[in-house]
Amino acid sequence: MTSQELAQTFTALCKNGEFEAAGRTYWSDDIVSREPMPGDMAEIRGRKDVEGKGVWWYANHEIHSTKVEGPYVHGDQFLVRFTMDVTPKGGQRMNMDEVGLYTVKDGKIAEESFFFGSSS
Amino acid sequence: MTSQELAQTFTALCKNGEFEAAGRTYWSDDIVSREPMPGDMAEIRGRKDVEGKGVWWYANHEIHSTKVEGPYVHGDQFLVRFTMDVTPKGGQRMNMDEVGLYTVKDGKIAEESFFFGSSS
Repeated sequence: MTSQELAQTFTALCKNGEFEAAGRTYWSDDIVSREPMPGDMAEIRGRKDVEGKGVWWYANHEIHSTKVEGPYVHGDQFLVRFTMDVTPKGGQRMNMDEVGLYTVKDGKIAEESFFFGSSS
Repeated sequence: MTSQELAQTFTALCKNGEFEAAGRTYWSDDIVSREPMPGDMAEIRGRKDVEGKGVWWYANHEIHSTKVEGPYVHGDQFLVRFTMDVTPKGGQRMNMDEVGLYTVKDGKIAEESFFFGSSS
């Protein structure tokens, strides 16, 4: 599977709402996940902890709708844009607009790095 | 000027149609510009040659409309999405959908790397 094919399949799963399946299928065991914020979320390493981040996120956000655009491909990297209408637990309903930058190595996603839009 | 501020100002110029001014103002002298294609365009180094790429591009494309979204920021990197309705010289009118990944060093853009969407 080329990086282009992985990008297409990963993004198709996300467009179908299967975000967790997309991660489980394509993250490498050594996946590094980066968020543009200080603290514990800034960098998480390893499949188990990154899956834990997902479990936490889904338990603490009510998702009203999502829009997934992409992939945008360059060599072994690709981008996917996520626009979400969500309510964080106990918080205000908000629009999230972010882009994931994924780096493929040996047929798996070795790194994911999220970029936040101004409206996030 | 922080990377966040540079990202905002650069993107504001692009939203205003001032793509060349955005580059001239914020590219470093050693700017590296990468396109996801084989051949001469794959990697261009240095402000003079990157400016030349822009001059060539504008001379060979008629732009009907553009939409600029972003910036999406993560540390010293940011993303800008460009959707363009263009006609290449002697070619068919087409929709381009691409995202630029910009890396800031010492207050200038040291690297730009373009990602193409499936519809490009």
